[in-house]
Amino acid sequence: MGDSPERSPSAAGEASGLIERAKELQDAASSLISRTTREEDALRQRVASLDSHIKSLRSTLRSSKDSDKLEEELIRAKYVLSEGDAAAFLPSKSHGRFLRMFLGPINVRANRKDVQLKVKEEYNHFRDRTAYLFLLFPSLLLTLRSWMWDGCLPALPVQLYQAWLLYLYTGLALRENILRVNGSDIRPWWIKHHYCAMVMAVISLTWDIERGSDCAHKQRGVQLFLKWAIMQGVAMILQNRYQRQRLYTRIALGKARRMDVVWGETAGVEGQLLLLCPILFVLQGFEAYVGVLLLKTAIAGFRSDWQVITCGILLIIMAVGNFANTVQTLVTKSKVKAKIRKGKSRQELNQGSDDKSL
Amino acid sequence: MGDSPERSPSAAGEASGLIERAKELQDAASSLISRTTREEDALRQRVASLDSHIKSLRSTLRSSKDSDKLEEELIRAKYVLSEGDAAAFLPSKSHGRFLRMFLGPINVRANRKDVQLKVKEEYNHFRDRTAYLFLLFPSLLLTLRSWMWDGCLPALPVQLYQAWLLYLYTGLALRENILRVNGSDIRPWWIKHHYCAMVMAVISLTWDIERGSDCAHKQRGVQLFLKWAIMQGVAMILQNRYQRQRLYTRIALGKARRMDVVWGETAGVEGQLLLLCPILFVLQGFEAYVGVLLLKTAIAGFRSDWQVITCGILLIIMAVGNFANTVQTLVTKSKVKAKIRKGKSRQELNQGSDDKSL
Repeated sequence: MGDSPERSPSAAGEASGLIERAKELQDAASSLISRTTREEDALRQRVASLDSHIKSLRSTLRSSKDSDKLEEELIRAKYVLSEGDAAAFLPSKSHGRFLRMFLGPINVRANRKDVQLKVKEEYNHFRDRTAYLFLLFPSLLLTLRSWMWDGCLPALPVQLYQAWLLYLYTGLALRENILRVNGSDIRPWWIKHHYCAMVMAVISLTWDIERGSDCAHKQRGVQLFLKWAIMQGVAMILQNRYQRQRLYTRIALGKARRMDVVWGETAGVEGQLLLLCPILFVLQGFEAYVGVLLLKTAIAGFRSDWQVITCGILLIIMAVGNFANTVQTLVTKSKVKAKIRKGKSRQELNQGSDDKSL
Repeated sequence: MGDSPERSPSAAGEASGLIERAKELQDAASSLISRTTREEDALRQRVASLDSHIKSLRSTLRSSKDSDKLEEELIRAKYVLSEGDAAAFLPSKSHGRFLRMFLGPINVRANRKDVQLKVKEEYNHFRDRTAYLFLLFPSLLLTLRSWMWDGCLPALPVQLYQAWLLYLYTGLALRENILRVNGSDIRPWWIKHHYCAMVMAVISLTWDIERGSDCAHKQRGVQLFLKWAIMQGVAMILQNRYQRQRLYTRIALGKARRMDVVWGETAGVEGQLLLLCPILFVLQGFEAYVGVLLLKTAIAGFRSDWQVITCGILLIIMAVGNFANTVQTLVTKSKVKAKIRKGKSRQELNQGSDDKSL
C-alpha cells in the first residue's frame, strides 16, 4: 500500500488528500454514531413501554384469578421480548457499586445476543475449570501433609491456595455482576455469597499458619477448611453438570432464557437431584460446623485472633444463607408441583420459577 | 398504563396484540443491530485502510529526510482520525490476558467518544482520591504508633491498609487496561508496575506483624515501607497535578489526545518539573533502599521468611523499572530539545512524543 521513496512529489498531493479522507471518515463516523444512538434510543423507549405494559397487565390478571390462557400469552410476549435481539434494548439494570468500584463507569453490556451468549458460556467454562481446581488444590495439600510434611502444613502452599481463592471469588463476583447487567436473573444471594468468600479469602491470608511441635492441633481450623473445600469442589462439579442440564431443559420448555444462571437451584432434573440435594445440605451443615468450631476455639481462648472469630462468623452466615436459599427453592418447587397436581396449566410453573429467580 | 380488572375481556384482545407488538419490536431490533453492525464494519475497514496508508507513508517519508511539511500533514491526518468519533473504528488493541482473567470476554471498548472521556476522567478522579488516601493511611498508622501504640504497630490496622492497597492496585490495573483498549497510549511499564504492586500487596498480607518486646526492631521493614508510602503519596499528588496540566498543554499543542495517560512522564511544565524530578528520583532511590534492606535482613538470618526476600526483590525491580522509565523520558525530551535548538520544526517534537508513548 505504501508509496516508494522515489515518488515523493506525488506523495505531497497524496498527503493532503489523506487529511481530506480522514475528515470525511470523521464525519461519516459522527453521523453513523449519532444516527445509531438516535435509533437505538427510540427502540429502547418502545421496548420499555411494551415491557411495562406487559408487566402491568400481568399484575392485573394475577389478581383476577380466571385468566390462565391470557397470562400464558403475556408470558409468551415477554419471552419474545427478552430472548432475542430486542433484549439488548430492555431497560438496563444498573451496574452496581461492585463493578463501579473495580472498573469505573465503563459499560459492560453487550448489544449483540451472540456476544452475551459468549460471555455466558465463558462463565460456565470458568466455573467448570475452577470446580476441578477447587477439588484438586485442597486434596493435594492434605495428601502431601500426611505423606511428606509429617502432619504439618507449611505456610507457603496454603497461602498460594488462599491467594488463588481470592482471585477466583473476585473473578466470579465480577463475571456474575457482568452477567446481571447483561440480563441474567442470577439470584442476588450467590453474588453476595462471593463477596463474603472474597472477604474470607483476604482474612485467611492474614491468618498465620502455625508451625512447630503442636501444629497438628493448632492447624485444625485450616485442615477442616481444606476438607470442606474438597466437599465444595465435589458439589460444584455436580451442580455445574446438573444446572447446565437443567438450564437446557428449562430453555427447551421455554421457562428460562439462555442468560439465566441457576447456580444453587435445586429444582428440576430428578435423578441428579436425589444425589445433589443431600450433598448440598451436608455441605452447608459442615460449613456451619467449621464456623462453630472456629468460634469455639476462639472462645476457649486457645487462639483468640480476630481472624478466627471473623472467619467463623462468615462461614456461619454463608451456611445459613445457602441453606435458606436452597430451602426456598425447594419450597417453591413443591408448591409448583402441588399446583400441577391440582391440574393447573403450565404457566403457573412459569410464574413459580419467575418468583424464584427474583 | 395498566388496565383495570373490570376490563378483562378487552384485555384478551390486548394480550394477543402484545405478542404481535413484541414480535415487531424483535424484528426491528434484529434489523437495527444487523444494519448497524454492517455499517460499522464497513466504516471500520475504511478507517483501518486509511490508518495503515498514513503509517506506511510516514515510514517512507522518515527515511527520505527532506519532508518536514509533508510529515506534519500526515500527523494532522492521523490526529483527525484518532481524536474524534472515527477513533472508535480504529483497529482495536486486544483486551489482554489480565482483563480476560478477571472479566471474561466482555467488550470494554466504548464506541462513543464522550463515554471514553468519562472513563478517562473517572480514572483521573480515582487517582486523585487514592493519592490522598495513600498519604493519609500510612501517616495515620505511623502517628498512632508513636502516640498511642508505644512504638508497636498492631496487626489489624496494618493489614486493613494492605488489603486496601491490594484493592487499589487491582482497580488501577483493571482501569488502565480498559483505558488501553479505549485507545489510550499509557506506557506498558505502569501497568506492569501495578501488577508487581498487586503481588506485593498479597504477599504483605501473609507477612505476619510481629508483636512483643522487641517489636520496634522487628517491625523495621513495615515502618520503612510505610514511610516510603507517605513519600509515594506526596509524589502521586504532585504527579497528578503536573500530568493533568501537562496533558492539557499537550492537547493544546495538538501533541496528545485526551485519552492519553502520562503518569510518570517527566517532560513538559518546567517549573513543576524542577520539584517533581528530584522527588521521583529520591523516591525511587528510597524504594530500592527499602528493598535492599529487606534482602539484608533476610540474608543476615534475622528473619528469613520468603515474604521478606520476595518483597525486597519486587521493590528493587519496581525501583529500577521506574528509574529506567523516567530516565528514558528525560533522554527523549533532551533529544527533542536539541532538535528544536537546531531549528527543526515542531513536528519532530510530535514524532518524539510518539516514540515515547509507544
